[in-house]
Order: sequence, then structure tokens, then C-alpha cells
Amino acid sequence: MTLTPFDFAALLPAGLPAPATKWTGLAKYSFVGGNNDPEQVPVGGLIDAANAVLGREGRTLATYGLASGPQGYAPLRAFLTAKLKRDAGIACTADDILIVSGSLQALDLVNQTLLSRGDTVIVEQDSYQGALNRLTRLGVHAVGIPLDHEGMRTDALAAALADLRDRGILPKYIYTIPTVQNPTGTIMPEARRAELLDLAEQYGVPVFEDDCYADLIWDGKRPPALYAMSQTGGVIHIGSFSKSIAPALRVGYIVAPWVLLSRMLALKTDAGSGALEQMVLAEYCTPHFSEHVPKLTRGLRAKLDTLMEALNEQFGTAAEFEDPKGGIFLWVKLPDQVDTPKLYQAALAAGVAINPGPEWSTDKAHSHNRLRLCFASPSHQEIREGVAVLAEVCRREFGVPERIANIGQPIRA
Amino acid sequence: MTLTPFDFAALLPAGLPAPATKWTGLAKYSFVGGNNDPEQVPVGGLIDAANAVLGREGRTLATYGLASGPQGYAPLRAFLTAKLKRDAGIACTADDILIVSGSLQALDLVNQTLLSRGDTVIVEQDSYQGALNRLTRLGVHAVGIPLDHEGMRTDALAAALADLRDRGILPKYIYTIPTVQNPTGTIMPEARRAELLDLAEQYGVPVFEDDCYADLIWDGKRPPALYAMSQTGGVIHIGSFSKSIAPALRVGYIVAPWVLLSRMLALKTDAGSGALEQMVLAEYCTPHFSEHVPKLTRGLRAKLDTLMEALNEQFGTAAEFEDPKGGIFLWVKLPDQVDTPKLYQAALAAGVAINPGPEWSTDKAHSHNRLRLCFASPSHQEIREGVAVLAEVCRREFGVPERIANIGQPIRA
Repeated sequence: MTLTPFDFAALLPAGLPAPATKWTGLAKYSFVGGNNDPEQVPVGGLIDAANAVLGREGRTLATYGLASGPQGYAPLRAFLTAKLKRDAGIACTADDILIVSGSLQALDLVNQTLLSRGDTVIVEQDSYQGALNRLTRLGVHAVGIPLDHEGMRTDALAAALADLRDRGILPKYIYTIPTVQNPTGTIMPEARRAELLDLAEQYGVPVFEDDCYADLIWDGKRPPALYAMSQTGGVIHIGSFSKSIAPALRVGYIVAPWVLLSRMLALKTDAGSGALEQMVLAEYCTPHFSEHVPKLTRGLRAKLDTLMEALNEQFGTAAEFEDPKGGIFLWVKLPDQVDTPKLYQAALAAGVAINPGPEWSTDKAHSHNRLRLCFASPSHQEIREGVAVLAEVCRREFGVPERIANIGQPIRA
Repeated sequence: MTLTPFDFAALLPAGLPAPATKWTGLAKYSFVGGNNDPEQVPVGGLIDAANAVLGREGRTLATYGLASGPQGYAPLRAFLTAKLKRDAGIACTADDILIVSGSLQALDLVNQTLLSRGDTVIVEQDSYQGALNRLTRLGVHAVGIPLDHEGMRTDALAAALADLRDRGILPKYIYTIPTVQNPTGTIMPEARRAELLDLAEQYGVPVFEDDCYADLIWDGKRPPALYAMSQTGGVIHIGSFSKSIAPALRVGYIVAPWVLLSRMLALKTDAGSGALEQMVLAEYCTPHFSEHVPKLTRGLRAKLDTLMEALNEQFGTAAEFEDPKGGIFLWVKLPDQVDTPKLYQAALAAGVAINPGPEWSTDKAHSHNRLRLCFASPSHQEIREGVAVLAEVCRREFGVPERIANIGQPIRA
């Protein structure tokens, strides 16, 4: 270049998010992200599916949306109709389903359809970072409801709804992850689901049900979806293939009434989600989903056992956690003096990536000593080694755990 | 449901786009959309690619972004680096490329990174509907520059830039489709590209170069990209695999400096674009792209010939058009008394879908009697039959063409 380089920075409008930093690869011990177990990707099945569906219908790739229109590949919606009925008790038709580019696009479309800057929504106090961050960017106030071992506490929800009504505020939705809650791993029992729906109906607030982890349950048993239980139809249901098949496939779905889907379709100006991924998923899942998922969850449960054993061994009583009923993450509480955002920085420098609690919570004080550990992606050995490094870093930075691996000397003799 | 159905409509914020209507299938004779020739999808090659890449790397689907990070699958960016150098003269590295979910996401990310409501941009007077609609939704004023057989007229661009400066307005970008312009099908020669870049640099306005049709040129020859010719780096370049391989694969790309890519990555909160599609494209295109494209363009050129013959036969001198140098569409001018939005409605009722001119133009008066006909998707026979039906509808509604297929009687004897 012979002239002064063009100054793009001068053109950027105010209010943009901070720039991304250059990607430098995954941490050596990565306990973050919704990544799955590479050994559990059904590679052979996906290859067979690609061969079959491309051989039969490959020419339809020449048409946007294949021959299925903008709501997504018809055989995938047919599979979902049957799966949602069988697993979640949802009675819907393919016309009630919109295939989207991962459940993140589902979050965006629901938010764009319902929210304006300044609105209020209700969320679980500890919740999915991607959902919380979206609300912050949209300028939407998120009221966090405390959780217990049955998920969102309906006594606290009732109090929050009453308080908001007293202040003249109608929340736009109640966002919940009722089936394998992120990050706490709880499953809301049917009785509490009924209480939640009663409150939602009483106050005229729709429920936004995120069921994207609901396939990963150790005993395979789950209550019906809120969508299935609602008597008024006031529930939006979303799900994903990221956790059950593979996250790099960006395929999720929304189940909602046409009054909403028609608005979401008008906002979904991407000419459809990836057709090849939809075709391969439909071809693979229709015959194989039910046999694949139990194998996957057995492997995940084994990794969770390794993680909990390693935490017990390395942290002793300093690490508190509930045994989650499914999923790919463990929500861990450390002693009060630990600040997990600081731990995150120190651990990353030592090659261990964790999710610090405040990024997954509306209550920074409550979550300052909590962290999320994802266990699906690292190997058993990496889990053991990574937790050992994390404990060493935590002891160095915060003085806990006092002993390492039951063989260290007490710091205060 | 035993209770009153939940009233979602009452919750929708003001300003949402109109709801979508239910999809009822493609028209019998569809001359709309960027659909391609189903016979030209390289199905066998894609199957071979899927087998090879999934067999070798299928387990990486367990990780978001595969092992390549958020900018997209590294082998696909490597292919693009070589292709852009060879075809468009662009010297860039894989770090300068962001893989996105079709060039529509590229438009969204560029717009989100640079535009605010009330901004002004410069576009070609007749331009891509998806780009124009996005600007309208964003509340951005689009100044249209007239085109001739060499694309955007730089004399008119100079006048518009001077006029805007006089009014204190700095346009945020100059959006151009220089290589197979949509809808006019022109290719901007190198000399005019240099003039356009000189003006852009003189006024300090970046150029937004949309090259998504640039692979589809009858003689395979194209000038260097504006991105390649710029001496200041003030060009954003986007492209797509939708036109060269298959539109239902939602894979496009952005080439831009890191100061912009880092902002786009922060706005691209979709956890990556579809990995399976990226993998299959990289595996197929690296050895086969150069041999596939000439076969595809030969087939497209033959369909264009059929379309132009059918128009001459059915419309005679009433249909005026330039022979485009590539692409998948023909921009047709009908006599002044024809209103193509009305023709669109009447033709659709008769089973023929067309793009009415005003949806593809900033100048509704100039474009009211123009229409865009896409010719890649229908068969030769459908092209001939569809144009005959269109001519019949047009004669019924507007009295032109006066004769049909050289065998009708003159309306006024």
C-alpha cells in the first residue's frame, strides 16, 4: 500500500460490543463450552446418512429451503414431531416447528419477536450465559429467581411476579431451563411445573422453555415439557441437536404458535438454516436417535463420576456440588474467600479453562465463589489432571483447598 | 385447552415486520430466487467429500468451530485464500477471512458493524433486494447511483458524493456488485473500478464489494476485485458458495481487516456457522472447484439462451434486455404502460413467479416496468412455457405484447 491505510475505526458507531481477541486455540484442560465427547460422535452413522440422503435428494440442494419451505427440512420436522411426542409429551405438528441455526438463533428470534429495550423478563438466578448476555445487550432487565434442587423456586417466582405487578411491570416472559438446568443440573418435577404454569397463567406471562439439554438424562426419565402441560398454549419451546448429536452442527428448533412463528419467519432473513446438516440429521436420527442417546449419556455419566471423584480427591470438602441428573456440566461452590473470576484468570494461565460463576448468574455476590465445569469434552485423564492443576492454582491464590490430594501438609499446622 | 388461549399478539412490540404468510410451495414456473440448476449440483462429488472428511475428521464435530476457532474451518479458509488469489487477484491470508452463514449473514454483520439508524449509504440504483430491504429495516438512507453497461456510473457517483458532502453527509459505504451485477448482469471493467476506488479514497468512504455471483461468468474472465486493487485497504469483500455450488448450503465469507473482523466476530453470537457444510465444501472444492464451475456456467448460458429466445418469440420488441455476461438472472424492460408489481400478482395467479422491478431498485419510477427473471432453476421447457404464460398474462393485463409468439392477430387491426 502506498497511501495511508483506510481508517475503519473512525467509522464504527457507538455502542458496539468490544472487539473479539484473536483465537489462540483451546486450553490444554478445557472445562468450558458446550462441547461434547469426540468419541461419542456417531461418525459412521452420519456417513451412512450423508450417502443415503445425498444420493436420494442431493439435487434439491439447488433450491433454497430444499422442497420444504422456510420452516425447515420436512423430514427433520417430522422426526421432531414424533420425538417431542414420545419424550416430552408435546402434541404438535410439523407446521408448529421452525428449524433454526442452533438454539442461539432460537434465543435471538424469540427475543426479537417479544422484547424491546427497557423490558423486564424473569430468568433463573443461575442461568445460561448466552441467554443472560443477550438480555444485557438488548437493554432488557433480567429478574433472577433463586433455584433449589427442583429448579426455579415457585415461591420466589410468586413473590417476584407480585412485586413486579405492584410496580406496574408485566414481564415479557419467564425463561426457564426446566430439564437439566444450566448450570445447576436439576430437573423440575411435574408438580412444580404445574405451579409455574399456574403462576404464569395467573399473571398473563408467557413461559420460554429452553429444553436444549433435555436428552441427556442419566435414567432417561423426564417430566412432560411445560409446553405439553400448558392449558393455554402460553409456552414457547426450544431445543437443539447440539447436545445429543454434535455441537458444530448448528441445528436447533422452535415450537410455538403461528402468531409467533410467522413473526419469527419474517425476522429470519438468512434464507434458511444449513440444508445439508438438516438432511443428514433427519436421515440419521429417524432410525438411530433412540439408540444413540443412551450410549452417549452412559459415557457422559462416567466422565461426571471421574470429575466428582477428582474434585473430592483434590478439593476435599472445599468443593461442594449436587450430583446432577444429566447434562454436561457441574456447578461447584468453593469457600467464600475464593473469587472465581480471579481463579479463572490464574487457572487459564496454567492451562485450565473454567466458567466463573458471575458470568452464569444474575446475582454476582451469590455466584462469586461458584464455577461451572463442563466434563463432556476432556478425556478422563484430562479431567483428573485438569482438576489437580485447578486445585493447585486455587490453593496458591486463595489458600483453599488446604490439602492437595489428601497427601499435602496442612497449611496451618 | 380448557382455558382461553394465551394472547401472544398483545405482547408484540411496535415496529416488527409484517408476519410471514404460510408457505404454499414454489410456483409452477418459478423465475425468482437465487436457486440453481438441480442437474448441476455435484452430488457425487459432495458424497465423496462427505465420506472422506467425516471419516477423517468427523469426531471434531464434538467441538464448536471444530479445531479451527470462530473464523471458520481452516481448510475452507485455505481454499478461499488460493481461489481469491487466482480468480480475483486478492492477496489475503486465512486470518483475513470470516466464514459466515451465507452472504446474507455477511450483509448483516457488515451493516451491524458500520451502520446506525439515520446513516446514509450509496448503492447501485438497481440492486439486490435483500441488501435494499436490510437498509430499509435499519432506517438507513440508500442513495442509488444509475448503472450502464459497465455497472455503477462513476460520473453519477462523483456527483452524488459531491452533493452529499455539500450537505454535510459522509456516506458509511459504497455498496457495489461489480462482477455480474444483480440484477443487470454487467461486469465493471478494470478502468472503471479504478475510478470508483479513486472517488472512494478521495471522499474517505469505504467500498463494500459483493462478489457473490462472480464465479458465474460465461468466458471465465473477470477483472481483479476492488479489494485487490485498493491501495488503502478501504474495501470489504464478501462472497458465497450459494451460486457456484448450491444455495441451500448456507456458506459465505467476508474478507476484511482485523479492525472490522474483530467487531463482526463479537456480533456473530451464533457459535459458528454449520461445520458439516464447511467441511464438505472444503473437501469438494479444493480439488474440484475449477473443473466444476465451467461446466455449471455452460449449462446456465444455455438456459439463458433459451430464456432470451423465448422472450423474443413471445414478447417481440416489447421486451428489451442486454445479454448479461454471467449470472443467473435477466433484467428485462417492458413498455412503459406495464406495471410489474401488478404483473407479478396476475402472473402468480397463473402459476408464474417473477421479481417485479421496484423491489430491486431505489428508483420506483425507473423500475416500475422492469422485472428480473431467474433462469437457473427451471428446465428449458419450463422456461419456454413460463414465458409464454407470462406474455399471455401481460397482454391480457396491459395490452402488450400486441402479438403472441408471432402467430397472434394484432389487437388493433
